[in-house]
Amino acid sequence: MTDLERLRHSAAHVMATAIAKLWPEAQFAAGPPVAEGFYYDVELTHRVSPTDFERIEAEMKAIVKANQPFERKVVSRAEALALAEKGRLAALAERATPSRYKLDILASIPEGATITLYQNGDFLDLCAGPHVMRTGNVKAFKLTAVASAYYKGDEKNPQLQRIYGTAFPNKTEMEAHFTMLEEAKKRDHRRLGAEMGLFTMDPDYTGPGLPLWLPKGGAILEELEKLAKETEFAAGYVRVKTPHIAREKMFTTSGHLPYYAESMFPPMEIREAEDAAGVSGRYYLKAMNCPHHHRIFAAEPRSYRDLPLRLAEYGCCYRYEQSGELFGLMRVRAMNMNDAHIYCAPEQFAAEFNAVNAMYLKYFKIFGFTKYRMRFSTSAPEGMGKKYVDEPELWKQTEDMVRAVLQASGIDYVEVPNEAAFYGPKIDVQVWSAIGREFTLATNQVDFAVPKRFGLVYRDRDNTDKIPLCIHRAPLGTHERFIGFLIEHFAGNFPLWLAPDQVRVLPVTDAQIDSAKGIVAELRAAQVRAEWEFSNDKLQGRIQRAEAARVHTILVVGAREQEADAVALRIHGKGPQGVKPRAQAIADLLQAIRERRSDEGQFSA
Amino acid sequence: MTDLERLRHSAAHVMATAIAKLWPEAQFAAGPPVAEGFYYDVELTHRVSPTDFERIEAEMKAIVKANQPFERKVVSRAEALALAEKGRLAALAERATPSRYKLDILASIPEGATITLYQNGDFLDLCAGPHVMRTGNVKAFKLTAVASAYYKGDEKNPQLQRIYGTAFPNKTEMEAHFTMLEEAKKRDHRRLGAEMGLFTMDPDYTGPGLPLWLPKGGAILEELEKLAKETEFAAGYVRVKTPHIAREKMFTTSGHLPYYAESMFPPMEIREAEDAAGVSGRYYLKAMNCPHHHRIFAAEPRSYRDLPLRLAEYGCCYRYEQSGELFGLMRVRAMNMNDAHIYCAPEQFAAEFNAVNAMYLKYFKIFGFTKYRMRFSTSAPEGMGKKYVDEPELWKQTEDMVRAVLQASGIDYVEVPNEAAFYGPKIDVQVWSAIGREFTLATNQVDFAVPKRFGLVYRDRDNTDKIPLCIHRAPLGTHERFIGFLIEHFAGNFPLWLAPDQVRVLPVTDAQIDSAKGIVAELRAAQVRAEWEFSNDKLQGRIQRAEAARVHTILVVGAREQEADAVALRIHGKGPQGVKPRAQAIADLLQAIRERRSDEGQFSA
Repeated sequence: MTDLERLRHSAAHVMATAIAKLWPEAQFAAGPPVAEGFYYDVELTHRVSPTDFERIEAEMKAIVKANQPFERKVVSRAEALALAEKGRLAALAERATPSRYKLDILASIPEGATITLYQNGDFLDLCAGPHVMRTGNVKAFKLTAVASAYYKGDEKNPQLQRIYGTAFPNKTEMEAHFTMLEEAKKRDHRRLGAEMGLFTMDPDYTGPGLPLWLPKGGAILEELEKLAKETEFAAGYVRVKTPHIAREKMFTTSGHLPYYAESMFPPMEIREAEDAAGVSGRYYLKAMNCPHHHRIFAAEPRSYRDLPLRLAEYGCCYRYEQSGELFGLMRVRAMNMNDAHIYCAPEQFAAEFNAVNAMYLKYFKIFGFTKYRMRFSTSAPEGMGKKYVDEPELWKQTEDMVRAVLQASGIDYVEVPNEAAFYGPKIDVQVWSAIGREFTLATNQVDFAVPKRFGLVYRDRDNTDKIPLCIHRAPLGTHERFIGFLIEHFAGNFPLWLAPDQVRVLPVTDAQIDSAKGIVAELRAAQVRAEWEFSNDKLQGRIQRAEAARVHTILVVGAREQEADAVALRIHGKGPQGVKPRAQAIADLLQAIRERRSDEGQFSA
Repeated sequence: MTDLERLRHSAAHVMATAIAKLWPEAQFAAGPPVAEGFYYDVELTHRVSPTDFERIEAEMKAIVKANQPFERKVVSRAEALALAEKGRLAALAERATPSRYKLDILASIPEGATITLYQNGDFLDLCAGPHVMRTGNVKAFKLTAVASAYYKGDEKNPQLQRIYGTAFPNKTEMEAHFTMLEEAKKRDHRRLGAEMGLFTMDPDYTGPGLPLWLPKGGAILEELEKLAKETEFAAGYVRVKTPHIAREKMFTTSGHLPYYAESMFPPMEIREAEDAAGVSGRYYLKAMNCPHHHRIFAAEPRSYRDLPLRLAEYGCCYRYEQSGELFGLMRVRAMNMNDAHIYCAPEQFAAEFNAVNAMYLKYFKIFGFTKYRMRFSTSAPEGMGKKYVDEPELWKQTEDMVRAVLQASGIDYVEVPNEAAFYGPKIDVQVWSAIGREFTLATNQVDFAVPKRFGLVYRDRDNTDKIPLCIHRAPLGTHERFIGFLIEHFAGNFPLWLAPDQVRVLPVTDAQIDSAKGIVAELRAAQVRAEWEFSNDKLQGRIQRAEAARVHTILVVGAREQEADAVALRIHGKGPQGVKPRAQAIADLLQAIRERRSDEGQFSA
């Protein structure tokens, strides 16, 4: 448990103390720390509503002010059961009814395990701890929500009320957190996505979790793919294209079936008989591109001279997420992935892995991500042969290689034991958006197990067949998640190269329409998304409309500008940028797009 | 029946006459003209093999030389039956056994229909005709193949021998045809595709008819997509991206289900319950992109100001072709389509349709297709409400519009009644490859029925809702079929811009390796697929290897070239092109790629 988690865990107990004071009949279940705060599940005779929060918080403040110590007590099972029977657990005093959820929890504690209670003031609770020293340490807290939750998440159990809160070491950090949430709400990718016409959900016809990318979102997709293709070409990748389906045999070979079946769409049962080779007529939508790429590796005899072979594809994969887990672009069922698989010899691994990491950093710079961290997930001895493919030597060797690369590159990283993939260690990249919210965006995994299952080999210098290592990497993750993140990061105000509407030219009067058309034609010939608009509306109204549509750059052409072959520049959200010669303005725009510049330093002086 | 078809039909009768002479017990079924020739199904006591062809052809020559007239006789059913009973039909004389297939055919001729016989020499046959005047008109013919065929294609019927041949008005045309076939064999896209590493079939794992595009094929795909995207951007298209699946409701709305179900992959039955709105949990792979695009049109309120709306997508569609019908890239189950749907008001139709046709011609010029024809398929009054949506007014109106556009544009076209799509008239584009083989590559269809089924409307100037027309168009067809065609057209020798391997730089000695690397770096920075090769092999050997790999341009750098900052140029299949200053050679290459030039005029003088 981190310091922050311990603090939040204690805050949950302070909240429970306050609730027990207000409603002595309350029956508590469990109150662990969670991602952004804490909760405690409680059974009450009345329905708690956010209007009760003030009363609870007031009681909590008093308890914090009282600065009660959290005292840990080790008790025997018999003692704990006796207290629970008297209703004395998660309570301020003995009660007529037993502490029934605590009784149930006690029953699930294995024989011989240490049973601990924690007490602050009169509030005594069954709790494994740890806690902060005193309630006075809980300096900044806030209740945030209340929801229903079945006991132990099982709908056959009684329904409890889950009261959520959060706590921080101080008020400043807490305020920053709520400001960030407020800002995140304004930047919500679902709201902005609809408002800007980027994508739409069509659950009835297309299906839930299957976004349709509208033209303006399509423009962003195209730009991202162009970036990835250029970057990958420069890094020596080659592009392949594979179908979205495969026969059952593909996925039993990869090992995804039957273990991963619940996360895949159900099969299509083909009407044809099973073929002579005994291959089943069952087809599945692919949930990942690797098996197809492995088959491409296998399609031709390979020699050490062909390695590293870097196969890249914007493959669209399908995963069957439960309806309840779908969330905007962040949790979807169709994923357009910036995927690639690098097949290499062990001696090439460090250089390849390093190059992948360098590519991540290059992308982060382009998008202006200043805070990021790599999360290096490794194996654990206890999982060998169970959670992890049983190759302890290979695990050690590969993890050492990855660790050495990370250390040498000086990238900020944390190592997390026992969270690797089944087939090798992995790196997840955590990125913080402009408003400080964390997202996991990209992965980089080593695979020393699956190539063997597909029988992949290369003929080495010594004329023997060897199994290649495979690096799975997806620096831009999926279009869906990445664009969802970018919408929040940029608050919908994309830099010029990414903006769905890059340039709008506004002639002041109809006498400048031809000039405007000329500028648009020149820009569009260079593949710039430019258009012109004239109507009877005043210029100011048309400027406002362009701003509302988040058109990145507005070029105004009035009589004076026309005369001087110039344009008056305006950047979305940044206002007028002065008058520039038309040729220079166009050259600047093209250069900013070509270099994928951020908005700072957009135009030359 | 065209003149050529009639000629081939008569050739089939000449063949039958020869067979009847050689094997009087032969029982004939039917012998129609087919695509590239004719056949006659025959029952014989021995197995005909190609070694018998010479004997049959010798007899045929004698019959041609005898110059027998083809005489038409109208007979009563009773007379025809009597002749068949005596074995006198499709025979030179009466026989012990009846003409049993002719008896069966007679039984299927409706009461009251005219029954005709044709006779040449002693050979008398039941035949609807028509025929050429005399056997002497059959001047050039050749038997080509023999295969098994069930009578009437039904495996419960007896197995017959189908003997194939072809005939031409003269020997020159026939020779040209067989030369073309010979050349087509050399250019076979399956053979070249494997040899060049463009694609592979992986029936066991991925599935039959589902090509995996290898890196070199992937390079061609990318170039074609880039071309299409640039061309469509210039023509005002916007790009969307849609999932490869949709719920059943999508396709019952479009009308593809249940009528088209046999051509679709079977559904995925989702484990979730049907939702509250009663939408089924059955998902289908899309067999076309239109329904998804219709939903994008429906996603936002549309006004006449938004039209024409041109939605483009390289969508991958899946159709369940029968295994037996799969053929290389020409008949597949996964199709990457250069698709777009243009939604327009009726008054915009002519301009839009014209622009689509102009785009076809633009593409044909780039690829060097000099022979092409548009096949305009229209409705027929007898199909109204059955084969065609029951809107006779709209049919007339739309067909008139299309016809007017075709006539005005001066494009070579033929009008074929009664072959339209269900929802409107269509144009298929027939193209002839460099060796004169015909392919149907692209389509352009008008749809005035399905937008209505999806409830698509736009708010017109008069403030009423109107249904848009929809043009379905796919000028580059599918990647699969188009590349299959291009392989034959170019015999695998793609022009520079399309060649998977564009440039290979060969340093003569290791002293020029750095120079070679510098040239490659410069070319690759401009996205050219360039590489260098050095080994202990002599230069000539490395040149041969590059030629064998069909690398388009070879740049040789020896001591002299290095000194002069020059390169010795060589083009695949065209040999040395002289020495050029390095900068000029690079500039020429980039320009040829940018302009997508054919090989003629590749380099400036």
